[in-house]
Amino acid sequence: MIDYAAPLRDMHFILGELAGQDAISALPGFEEASPDVVEAILDEAGKFAAGVLAPINVAGDLQGCRLEADGRVITPEGWKAAWDQYVEAGWIGLSLAPEFGGQGLPKLVSTPVWEMWFSTNMAFTMLPQLNVSQAEALQIAASDELKQTWLHKVVSGEWGSTMNLTEPQAGSDLAATRARAEPAADGSYRVFGQKIFISYGEHELTSNIVHLVLARLPDAPAGVKGLSLFLVPKYLLDAEGNPGAKNDVRCISIEHKMGIHGSPTCTMSYGDAGGAIGWLVGEPNRGLETMFIMMNEARFGVGVQGAGLAERAYQFALGYARDRVQGRDAITGEAGKPILHHPDVKRMLMSMRARVMAMRALLYTAAGWFDFAHHHPDAVVAGRARRYVDLLMPVAKGWCTEVGQQLCSDAIQVFGGMGFVEETGIAQFARDARIITIYEGTTGIQANDLVGRKILREGGETLFELITELRATVAELRADPTLGAIADGLAENIAALNGTTHWLLAKGKDQLAEVLAGAVPFLHLLGTVCGSWQMARLALAARRKVAAGEGDASYNASLVELARFYMGTFAPQAAAHAATVRDAGEALLAFDPAAF
Amino acid sequence: MIDYAAPLRDMHFILGELAGQDAISALPGFEEASPDVVEAILDEAGKFAAGVLAPINVAGDLQGCRLEADGRVITPEGWKAAWDQYVEAGWIGLSLAPEFGGQGLPKLVSTPVWEMWFSTNMAFTMLPQLNVSQAEALQIAASDELKQTWLHKVVSGEWGSTMNLTEPQAGSDLAATRARAEPAADGSYRVFGQKIFISYGEHELTSNIVHLVLARLPDAPAGVKGLSLFLVPKYLLDAEGNPGAKNDVRCISIEHKMGIHGSPTCTMSYGDAGGAIGWLVGEPNRGLETMFIMMNEARFGVGVQGAGLAERAYQFALGYARDRVQGRDAITGEAGKPILHHPDVKRMLMSMRARVMAMRALLYTAAGWFDFAHHHPDAVVAGRARRYVDLLMPVAKGWCTEVGQQLCSDAIQVFGGMGFVEETGIAQFARDARIITIYEGTTGIQANDLVGRKILREGGETLFELITELRATVAELRADPTLGAIADGLAENIAALNGTTHWLLAKGKDQLAEVLAGAVPFLHLLGTVCGSWQMARLALAARRKVAAGEGDASYNASLVELARFYMGTFAPQAAAHAATVRDAGEALLAFDPAAF
Repeated sequence: MIDYAAPLRDMHFILGELAGQDAISALPGFEEASPDVVEAILDEAGKFAAGVLAPINVAGDLQGCRLEADGRVITPEGWKAAWDQYVEAGWIGLSLAPEFGGQGLPKLVSTPVWEMWFSTNMAFTMLPQLNVSQAEALQIAASDELKQTWLHKVVSGEWGSTMNLTEPQAGSDLAATRARAEPAADGSYRVFGQKIFISYGEHELTSNIVHLVLARLPDAPAGVKGLSLFLVPKYLLDAEGNPGAKNDVRCISIEHKMGIHGSPTCTMSYGDAGGAIGWLVGEPNRGLETMFIMMNEARFGVGVQGAGLAERAYQFALGYARDRVQGRDAITGEAGKPILHHPDVKRMLMSMRARVMAMRALLYTAAGWFDFAHHHPDAVVAGRARRYVDLLMPVAKGWCTEVGQQLCSDAIQVFGGMGFVEETGIAQFARDARIITIYEGTTGIQANDLVGRKILREGGETLFELITELRATVAELRADPTLGAIADGLAENIAALNGTTHWLLAKGKDQLAEVLAGAVPFLHLLGTVCGSWQMARLALAARRKVAAGEGDASYNASLVELARFYMGTFAPQAAAHAATVRDAGEALLAFDPAAF
Repeated sequence: MIDYAAPLRDMHFILGELAGQDAISALPGFEEASPDVVEAILDEAGKFAAGVLAPINVAGDLQGCRLEADGRVITPEGWKAAWDQYVEAGWIGLSLAPEFGGQGLPKLVSTPVWEMWFSTNMAFTMLPQLNVSQAEALQIAASDELKQTWLHKVVSGEWGSTMNLTEPQAGSDLAATRARAEPAADGSYRVFGQKIFISYGEHELTSNIVHLVLARLPDAPAGVKGLSLFLVPKYLLDAEGNPGAKNDVRCISIEHKMGIHGSPTCTMSYGDAGGAIGWLVGEPNRGLETMFIMMNEARFGVGVQGAGLAERAYQFALGYARDRVQGRDAITGEAGKPILHHPDVKRMLMSMRARVMAMRALLYTAAGWFDFAHHHPDAVVAGRARRYVDLLMPVAKGWCTEVGQQLCSDAIQVFGGMGFVEETGIAQFARDARIITIYEGTTGIQANDLVGRKILREGGETLFELITELRATVAELRADPTLGAIADGLAENIAALNGTTHWLLAKGKDQLAEVLAGAVPFLHLLGTVCGSWQMARLALAARRKVAAGEGDASYNASLVELARFYMGTFAPQAAAHAATVRDAGEALLAFDPAAF
């Protein structure tokens, strides 16, 4: 087992140089997020991640969860103690509203903290992630009474949270939802139905669990416009507001999964004994909108999972490559050196480090936009940031999960045969990571969202705005002759993206099926180009620091080499994705499905 | 669980149209491999795979193997009965020498049979695969006495086989081997040492196990030129040639792995009680050469594992996509259709089918070359086939395993959340497949072999010979105007390959580290181009059949669309790999490893 070391230097570099930390801490409401405070928070989080979450990650995988005959779900050893410490430290409220007990810090600050949690224990971290997503949704949509009753203890972590969307016949297609809710005389509702794939649907880590459940009112229209959202607690509250009588909801089975064994994935049954008592959150038939607040929050978080798992897998592989002695130097014939010195092992590790940095830079930059969007006093700045966040949310989720997942599998390769042996610990990351391109909307769903809602619907306006920004980065690169190769790489990427976007808009008018057949390759194209852009910005920032004599010169130089390596290794894939978007759809449509 | 259906139509098409079945059955010694016989064999193998091996594959994964306190290794339920049936049917000897009980059929015929075994139960099939590899090695290298004593029962499967190379400090680097052997007065040897990662090192499926063990003689030179090969049985033979006294070899632990749970991976200890009795195979200090006969055979087999696992994963995904109803048609808004109708799901399935066909075509073609190399009376034809086999062996292993592994992971994506649930059965394929890019030489090892031994050493001669052949295929494509896009795609691929090969040869003279840093991308480049070539040949053959009015017209048409799809989806990656070979190495070498 390789100890986790929080990548603080990389994090601070990206926060400060690429993601606008200074500007964000100057925004109204974020005055407390000074560099000192941010540094202290990341230091503490790094210690917590390494000291509390990492050590129980393996037990979580080995022991998994179990459902007892009495309906209790038992989480792995150490889970409860870690949760209590996590709650005690107040981590859940980091970026939530102070009004309900949160600390109101920027998303820019909470994002690296979440990255650390995901690096060290993704199965555990899914629970606080649900609390945060639920709190965001309740803050926006719930009535004051519901907020006052439930929100404080969701923010503190005294109670757990879930989101209940999926049913056996309603996976990606929520229109097929059958769960239903009947109004009761007292203004509450009785909820009935079965929900599957409910993470942390049942457990004993908290004294209550707050479920948010999508269901249909009796008079609801068909489809997604007939879905309402209900808050259904595991225990009803007594007169003092404490958990009292058990509500009519129970976990009837848990899944046996490829990974995230420490996170119980429950089938939940509501209303088997007369109806689970719940309350409407927001307006009737507009539940999906609220759920999407929660889901968008969660989607960004799943993108961060991609980067977090990838960082830790990279650390594992690097630790092994520095330690394991094998073979001879291909050039000098020298023996006794660690495998890191083999060119192909170094290539694997650089390809990991380059992708981690590209993902991280994109995610932190997006977190910064998120803060600008919500807090910048200048409506023009805030509006642009909001457009960028909306456009790139499917990329942050779709691309970072695809890349993160591939990277976790690549990390096994560095270990050779030892990587396939479970005790080494690296296989778990690949198994855990296999879910991230699926849940909270598959990559296909993200790609359709990107192409359909985010690009075609507005004629590509925001994407072209972003492309203008990318071109400005090329111009900056051109001013530094040592960055010529990076400038060329980014310029070629932009050309591929721009051309393909025009193709998309032209085809989107009357050949939508062909466009949708290329949606995932287009998402990969945009993700790759965004990665190139971020690596180019990283190189520019590193060169600025070199020129100013700031920081560690060899670290800064290594970032420039890393960016060049990205341009040689990953940027060329943009043209391949662009070709696929344009060239594969025709044959795909012509192919008779009966011939499969 | 989706039933396995042997892809006989695809297999026969490739055997007959691309891999030279007619020519091979006309070769001396292969007269019995008539089309009727081949068809009957594949039919039977398909039934055996579906009826015997597929049903126990899940139990193998769930139960795994266990080591008892008495040293016995217990294999999963059903393993023993399946093995007995397998032996009874004579499957092991299919392509082995009739002299020792084999059927002497062409490798072209045995390859699709092995593909079926791997599709349906890779963990099980690793055992007969070891028997075949060992038989090939013994046939070539062992003394007549050893052959007469051991070979018949290895070929029949009455006894099992292993290969013992790896030690804790000697993984990819066999020069570090420490196991040793001392000569005894009677001409036998006493073998001492520990070997790890020994597949089927211990089990009760057979009445004896024949281990081949790499070890050093007392006077052996250091390094790989001091390795000798020894045959060490689990049980010594009595006067009648039957297993008698237990030899001084035992399994001391088995691995807990990510996949292939049904295959026991043993740590073997030799000579704890005075020395394991063994016999020298071949000449002293030349054990590695013999082991490489075994390993090259096994490497090709592992490439077939890639295609076999991929075919079955594709069948799973296709079955689910045809069955699962979800969402609305993006164009018509129609509900109630299976997800196969979503453009992105169809894209995933086509990308699977296209890659399976490309891998299969390359592997069968290579199997055909193997037969020509060994049996063609014209030395020119045989020599060229031998050169192609040698050149492309690392591609058959490296590329087919990388592609097959990726495809098995992609198959999970089609299932969405259900794919992550173990009971669905698809996760097992991804877990099993994770080993294939590692064992029998990692992709990095294959790539170094390709670039170093197969290309640089001979100045690229065979590769340029192959490129000439590829260009001839472009010329053929040009003659059919409907194949223009395929011709263009292949021509671009060839240009990328040709240019990169020249770059490689130029750099290889004095910048070997930069070349080796690009070795794996080069392997992907050559694999991708070989795939394009095979798909182009597939399209040509399909068009020929259309013109001749042969076969199923819609099947033939679908193959042309599949080839076009490959050209749109995978062929464009060749240029990206070529760019990586050329552009990433400089930054990689400049990057200071201390900066990781």
